[in-house]
Amino acid sequence: MTNKNESITRQEDDFAQWYTDVCLKAELMDYSSVKGFIIYRPYGYAIWENIQKYLDEKFKYVGVENVYLPLVIPTSLFQKEKDHVVGFAPETLVATKGGKNDLDDPLIVRPTSETLFCDHYAKIIKSYRDLPKRYNQWCSVVRWEKTTRPFLRGSEFLWQEGHTMYETAEEARKDALRMLEIYDAAGRDLLAIPFVKGIKTEKEKFAGAVETYSIEALMPDGKALQSGTTHYFGDGFAKAFGIQFLGRDNKLETPHQTSWGVSTRLLGAIIMVHGDDNGLVLPPHVAPIQVVIIPVQQNKPEVMKKAREYYEFLKAAGIRVKLDDSDHTPGWKYSEYEMKGVPLRLEVGPRDISNGVAVIAKRNDGEKFIVKEADVLSEVSRLFEVIHKEMYQKAFRYLLDHTTEAHSIEELGQIFDRGGYAKVMWCGDQECENKVKELYQATARCMPFDQNPFDEKCLICGKKAEKVVFFARAY
Amino acid sequence: MTNKNESITRQEDDFAQWYTDVCLKAELMDYSSVKGFIIYRPYGYAIWENIQKYLDEKFKYVGVENVYLPLVIPTSLFQKEKDHVVGFAPETLVATKGGKNDLDDPLIVRPTSETLFCDHYAKIIKSYRDLPKRYNQWCSVVRWEKTTRPFLRGSEFLWQEGHTMYETAEEARKDALRMLEIYDAAGRDLLAIPFVKGIKTEKEKFAGAVETYSIEALMPDGKALQSGTTHYFGDGFAKAFGIQFLGRDNKLETPHQTSWGVSTRLLGAIIMVHGDDNGLVLPPHVAPIQVVIIPVQQNKPEVMKKAREYYEFLKAAGIRVKLDDSDHTPGWKYSEYEMKGVPLRLEVGPRDISNGVAVIAKRNDGEKFIVKEADVLSEVSRLFEVIHKEMYQKAFRYLLDHTTEAHSIEELGQIFDRGGYAKVMWCGDQECENKVKELYQATARCMPFDQNPFDEKCLICGKKAEKVVFFARAY
Repeated sequence: MTNKNESITRQEDDFAQWYTDVCLKAELMDYSSVKGFIIYRPYGYAIWENIQKYLDEKFKYVGVENVYLPLVIPTSLFQKEKDHVVGFAPETLVATKGGKNDLDDPLIVRPTSETLFCDHYAKIIKSYRDLPKRYNQWCSVVRWEKTTRPFLRGSEFLWQEGHTMYETAEEARKDALRMLEIYDAAGRDLLAIPFVKGIKTEKEKFAGAVETYSIEALMPDGKALQSGTTHYFGDGFAKAFGIQFLGRDNKLETPHQTSWGVSTRLLGAIIMVHGDDNGLVLPPHVAPIQVVIIPVQQNKPEVMKKAREYYEFLKAAGIRVKLDDSDHTPGWKYSEYEMKGVPLRLEVGPRDISNGVAVIAKRNDGEKFIVKEADVLSEVSRLFEVIHKEMYQKAFRYLLDHTTEAHSIEELGQIFDRGGYAKVMWCGDQECENKVKELYQATARCMPFDQNPFDEKCLICGKKAEKVVFFARAY
Repeated sequence: MTNKNESITRQEDDFAQWYTDVCLKAELMDYSSVKGFIIYRPYGYAIWENIQKYLDEKFKYVGVENVYLPLVIPTSLFQKEKDHVVGFAPETLVATKGGKNDLDDPLIVRPTSETLFCDHYAKIIKSYRDLPKRYNQWCSVVRWEKTTRPFLRGSEFLWQEGHTMYETAEEARKDALRMLEIYDAAGRDLLAIPFVKGIKTEKEKFAGAVETYSIEALMPDGKALQSGTTHYFGDGFAKAFGIQFLGRDNKLETPHQTSWGVSTRLLGAIIMVHGDDNGLVLPPHVAPIQVVIIPVQQNKPEVMKKAREYYEFLKAAGIRVKLDDSDHTPGWKYSEYEMKGVPLRLEVGPRDISNGVAVIAKRNDGEKFIVKEADVLSEVSRLFEVIHKEMYQKAFRYLLDHTTEAHSIEELGQIFDRGGYAKVMWCGDQECENKVKELYQATARCMPFDQNPFDEKCLICGKKAEKVVFFARAY
């Protein structure tokens, strides 16, 4: 395909600018008058709604219940868990005035809600019979960021945050892993994005967590994007908040906690992993519009009649379909819906009608099909699966091609310069981790569950290697 | 029914305390450590989710698109429309610190988002082709309240706020009325609550609106509860924000605006309108649990087997069903689900099984049915409709019985003391409105669409009457 959309920067010219162009031109978002805060426009928000719907169903299936906790956290409450404060305090938005009065205990606009959940759990958990508690909320959070980029890093973003309490450490750890599986499945089945799953190093884990697990996606510019995390907290927060329950043996015990979240950052992943020089390319299962119908010579009554027939028929079959009967030219419309990444375009022209066919074009590779009228629905359904698989496999091949074992420190630099993950044998010492960052501005993304060690020595210091770590430059 | 739940106050002893007791004991909400901010617990939030689902579908059907705009509004932007500032400024929460710095332009946590929507619309509306715009967002808003009550008045509440722009005043006014119809339908079809629909007086309308329409519900303590509003703004905000579009005649024009919203206040209406001394009574279509199955003598294997069969069967049929197999006594469970207002209880005991029947009890009036096993699903479905109708009609009768024409100022006081609406002939003068408030602490709830005037003179001043107004004491 040639680049019909001259209005956007080409990826190879400036990937960062291409990204911003797509965000704006595909009408996913707009900047607001509040610095660092974006507007989620209908087309962008609809993608998020589809992600929400998928995850919410999965969460409920495993017994998670939705709740809503306050938007603000009193400073005194926020300070109860020490590591947590240190991690978040520098990037909080703080309200100091309510009505006409200055607040005695200023209110922090939630950057995350561990403290509020713990405060609530301390009130409602009394007995082992009250466990487990598995709560989730869909909301926005605020982190006061100096440099922001649409969906990737913003002063406010939309997310879900799950917070659980269990009787035992085993159950809690299992929860953190189960939720990671659900996120991974969303990548595989909904977003067509392969993730690397693993556990974070001590240096990279969440403020206050014992263990942090993550899914990491790889962008076409070779940088990693942390796309979701789950945390096992042990009983640290629970102790700080005095949460105790009467156990099965009639003794007071402290519960074990997890939290987990994904955010609108996933939109950034979708845009980058799949997009091209004509704009967005959306996987069919998450696309707000799955099929756009474009009438050719729409002034002819039989064309509009047939286009409406297809529209009603596909809609009734549960397909998210749009008929564009605006007075723009078909060429303009082709570009517009390519920019918006609509997976399938169905063209209806007078000649097609007399031949009893329609033309269907795939957004992801431009392939066209002439389809008999009677086969349109089955062909559309079939192509959704084909497209999804093609998009996933393309991203997966890229991931494989850009995951390289590093056998020397020099090679490490070459891997990062080419882009992608360096698989590194590591002794476990934070100094070695720091050294990679100093040398190459790359961080330990995770220690993947599939370890497959390939050397016995730490790449950096030469001591005994303990772990395989994926290092990369990252968003 | 006798009051099995001795733990809650009786309505006739102290209605306000009864309300608070139900909110807490039915586990709809809890207080948080943030004064005036409540926690929406799973059972309460699930009711809100059902309301969201109903409304979101209706909104989308009429072409509304969901978006998400920033949580905070720069003070300078907030001050652009004068009436609006005066109306909201005294009750705002203001953030003055971001990260380590004091903010030059302090950020108001949104109490409502007209200003942000106008700011965005000014950027994206250029031509009549861009109209109408019909955006909605589901979010929370903050209004710094001195006295708060669960769901009825809080410093933070959940709501949806729709904001639209149209080419003409006629279209915009029609939108405000159409959305009011949707809210009214939710009362009739989902919540089993009859509303009085009408237009607000000048004194009672929204800050900055030309016209405010509202739905008003009547509580069993005789007080009115404003349950939803829609506003026609004319072009006042649009002018203040410089929103202009190139019209069909190629001239610059100013669009016409509406906004509309309902909130978690509706939960307060449900609780009060339907509740009784045993707790909550939920209309079936909005109930998170529609049927609770309670095994009697659940230690007998055939009882649990049959209970599970019913559970799986009803669940597969799309009924929201819960099987309580906890080790509490059946009596405890009866009370618990009465408190939680579950519309139907299905009892399964050994004798029922050998008779090939189950016992179904209605929460709203305690009526019991012995139902053949094969008829359980059809009977459950039938009873949902019966219950819904009974609950609606009971509330409607109460509304009729407590809506009274006032023929003298003294009678007006008697009406308010008995509770309910006084229908008042009114000249339209705000002084007369003020006088009613001074004398009886009652406000003009709305001028109902069904006017039916019954006198020619203003009840208060005796001048020519222009309108029928419903006055009431209100939440």
